[in-house]
Amino acid sequence: MAPVYITNKERTKFAMSKKICSRAEDYSQWYNDLVLRGKLAEHSSVRGCMVIRPYGYALWENMKTELDKKFKETGHVNAYFPLFIPKSFLSKEAAHVEGFAKECAVVTHYRLMNDPNGGGIVVDPDAKLEEELIVRPTSETIIWNTYKGWIKSYRDLPLLINQWANVVRWEMRTRLFLRTAEFLWQEGHTAHSTSQEAIQEAERMLDVYADFVENFLAIPVLKGVKTPNERFAGAVETYCIEALMQDGKALQAGTSHFLGQNFAKAFEVQFTNKENTLEFVWATSWGVSTRLIGALLMAHSDDEGLVLPPKVAPLQVVIVPIFKNDEELNAVFDRVSGLMAALKAKGISVKFDDDDQTRPGFKFAQYELEGVPVRVAIGPRDMANGTAEIARRDTKEKQLMQLDELDTLIPELLDAIQANMFQKALQFREENTRKADTYEEFKRILDDEAGFVLAHYDGTSETEDKIKEETKATIRCIPLNNPLEEGVCIVTGKPSKQRAVFARAY
Amino acid sequence: MAPVYITNKERTKFAMSKKICSRAEDYSQWYNDLVLRGKLAEHSSVRGCMVIRPYGYALWENMKTELDKKFKETGHVNAYFPLFIPKSFLSKEAAHVEGFAKECAVVTHYRLMNDPNGGGIVVDPDAKLEEELIVRPTSETIIWNTYKGWIKSYRDLPLLINQWANVVRWEMRTRLFLRTAEFLWQEGHTAHSTSQEAIQEAERMLDVYADFVENFLAIPVLKGVKTPNERFAGAVETYCIEALMQDGKALQAGTSHFLGQNFAKAFEVQFTNKENTLEFVWATSWGVSTRLIGALLMAHSDDEGLVLPPKVAPLQVVIVPIFKNDEELNAVFDRVSGLMAALKAKGISVKFDDDDQTRPGFKFAQYELEGVPVRVAIGPRDMANGTAEIARRDTKEKQLMQLDELDTLIPELLDAIQANMFQKALQFREENTRKADTYEEFKRILDDEAGFVLAHYDGTSETEDKIKEETKATIRCIPLNNPLEEGVCIVTGKPSKQRAVFARAY
Repeated sequence: MAPVYITNKERTKFAMSKKICSRAEDYSQWYNDLVLRGKLAEHSSVRGCMVIRPYGYALWENMKTELDKKFKETGHVNAYFPLFIPKSFLSKEAAHVEGFAKECAVVTHYRLMNDPNGGGIVVDPDAKLEEELIVRPTSETIIWNTYKGWIKSYRDLPLLINQWANVVRWEMRTRLFLRTAEFLWQEGHTAHSTSQEAIQEAERMLDVYADFVENFLAIPVLKGVKTPNERFAGAVETYCIEALMQDGKALQAGTSHFLGQNFAKAFEVQFTNKENTLEFVWATSWGVSTRLIGALLMAHSDDEGLVLPPKVAPLQVVIVPIFKNDEELNAVFDRVSGLMAALKAKGISVKFDDDDQTRPGFKFAQYELEGVPVRVAIGPRDMANGTAEIARRDTKEKQLMQLDELDTLIPELLDAIQANMFQKALQFREENTRKADTYEEFKRILDDEAGFVLAHYDGTSETEDKIKEETKATIRCIPLNNPLEEGVCIVTGKPSKQRAVFARAY
Repeated sequence: MAPVYITNKERTKFAMSKKICSRAEDYSQWYNDLVLRGKLAEHSSVRGCMVIRPYGYALWENMKTELDKKFKETGHVNAYFPLFIPKSFLSKEAAHVEGFAKECAVVTHYRLMNDPNGGGIVVDPDAKLEEELIVRPTSETIIWNTYKGWIKSYRDLPLLINQWANVVRWEMRTRLFLRTAEFLWQEGHTAHSTSQEAIQEAERMLDVYADFVENFLAIPVLKGVKTPNERFAGAVETYCIEALMQDGKALQAGTSHFLGQNFAKAFEVQFTNKENTLEFVWATSWGVSTRLIGALLMAHSDDEGLVLPPKVAPLQVVIVPIFKNDEELNAVFDRVSGLMAALKAKGISVKFDDDDQTRPGFKFAQYELEGVPVRVAIGPRDMANGTAEIARRDTKEKQLMQLDELDTLIPELLDAIQANMFQKALQFREENTRKADTYEEFKRILDDEAGFVLAHYDGTSETEDKIKEETKATIRCIPLNNPLEEGVCIVTGKPSKQRAVFARAY
């Protein structure tokens, strides 16, 4: 039985309704249409929390499977830590509490009761927790409190652990996938005996993320480090990958943190080194989330709907028969059943759409909306000629191909689509990365063209804050291996040795 | 890089410490030793919540992968619903609220602040939620509230959705894996246009669970239905699989519920049928949890430690070289590298233990504790003779085998171990299933021999309650296809047409 992510009935509904909003008309509405009409997710009755629908979850599952494989290939294992964090844990690392204690879900009671006054069920005032519990916004504190019991000697290190989990940050303004109160993510938490090894780990995981986002999601990324202003609360260094969306805004697609000994000191995690002396443990943490689905949508989709890179697409190939009666339908099915088996054997997902309630033109529109990379249409004339019409979703090109060659042509086409989508996104980024040498030019680019702006600044938090306040642009990163170049700060005129990457961001 | 579930250092620690408690000495302590010394899980700083350590999580991952495959083969897709449930939702289904509203984690606030009196961080009294949120104890209510928006027509049905998630039930007495405040599980929630189809679904998923527990975890189960007393809160019928542990206590290993139209009515979910009239939707839900790890441990393990069925074991084969120097070590490694590649190609996980800090005897003991199904030891004499000593964990039998034949013998041995473990557990269950025809006999069996007791009762909740109160035994199930047999209730003497399965249970 094939998985049904979206029912035929739902497809009919899409087909019947008007097109989604165009990017030019209203980019933000276009994004919402993609998510809602693509049946990826929707708002729930709980403020800020989304429901991830089967088609959206299938994207996340595919990402998760690929990432998990990469984590395991680099020596990591999975574990699971509690959802709840005692309030006092958050306070133990000074910078961390500033970053995470503010907007969070607080559990104060552990029981409900029938209202003695008949008002339904109410919180039982006698069941108040001695110490409030925070629903984890991130797990450094509970994990380092646990690692204290696990790490005694250098022989216990490194500890290379990842967790797949839900986390909650009580965001006031939410957008599906991009910013929600609850989201799904993975968080790696590793422990090392030397600073150098921890830094290598943080950099290795940044590379894993960049490789995944570029080669699986077909989104080019800049690798860099954050300025102190934008660092993770509790990190010594935050590495990041930054992607550019089609509206010229940046999106942080993943971060990897070198935490130094900050959490080891906060939770008193020490180990005996080879010289038999006690040292604090060195740490990293790194994560990507369901936000990547937002990035995926905004990097590639068009005014007809989703455009999914073949590697992440839940359905890669759809075969739409053109038929007037069951006989014609069955003839097409018989003709392609060998092809379907051959594609499945190569790990390619393929669906034969035999729904007789929807006309082919509607089906074409709905599979375009869903972003299925390759559509194969076969009608009576094709059956006679041994051909099929192949439409690729990324370029919308159609061509006639020999039916007998599809078992080799379709895999090649999927590879070509994957490569083309990356190249197209890369070209877009290159065309939308500009240098600004004055503050006026900087502001003009942001307002008129958006994109990444490379500019000198004097390296101070004050200047960074001033730029953010006046232009809403933030420093996305200082790229790794950034070319050195003499220049002057666009705001203060003070000397600078390299350009930072600025942008307005999600 | 191979995954490191347990470090060499930890292994050394096990090896150096005394054996685990025996079952005869203290069954409960034996179980705790298995979990803690086997590095499967531990208690966290948050009351009732456990940390699932990498080795324990690897068991869960293997179960999850297998179950997820079975769910997809039967047409289900995954989705994700919010962690939080508005308090009022729980009250909408009358029986459901009785079952679940009592012991739960209640979120009342969404912000912390610095204490104006300098007492650290405190709950911000201004950030009180208008309606409290419950951390989901199960998701029927939030899901059926969502389905209301998805289901309009018979063409939207069936809806076959599963969720992998964490849930919280504020248990007062907790035991690792068996009963914890937070646990991991899957919950299927399906919607159907007819009662018959929903019942078929509930029964199909019971079969999926039974097949999984018997053939993957090697634990025989009884399939049956619960009495009204033991039914899921909100269900019309609760199907279950019941397993027997080595101490003669029963453990409910999975449940599948036919929910009738209860939740559809509570959340007003109606569909237009083919005759164009409105009907309430029919529902099922079904779940298994990390509790299965507890069942796995208690069904098979022995006084030396875990005994894992090969299909679920994170590590299936360990090769322990016996060596005095690097030259001997390398010679063994070279000799077995082809074997290791051959086993890996067959999907068998294998590890070569080259740790030179621990003596072979200690290694043997620690892999026994960890339950690795097959251990291969190769020393200098074996190298000369082309042999290896193969030890199977389940029977502890050792035999010499030809090194060159191991690539075919080991897969056969793993299959034999899997089959033997099931047979052994089945035999245990058969030996520990007894009929009682009087209440005295019933009580004597429970006290002296435990196990399943088949007895007549008059079918009333009163009698069931009385038996439970007086003997701590509950009706585990009325088996499916239960043989009919005239008899009289062991308590009231009233007539009965079939025996129920009683036991004391986890």
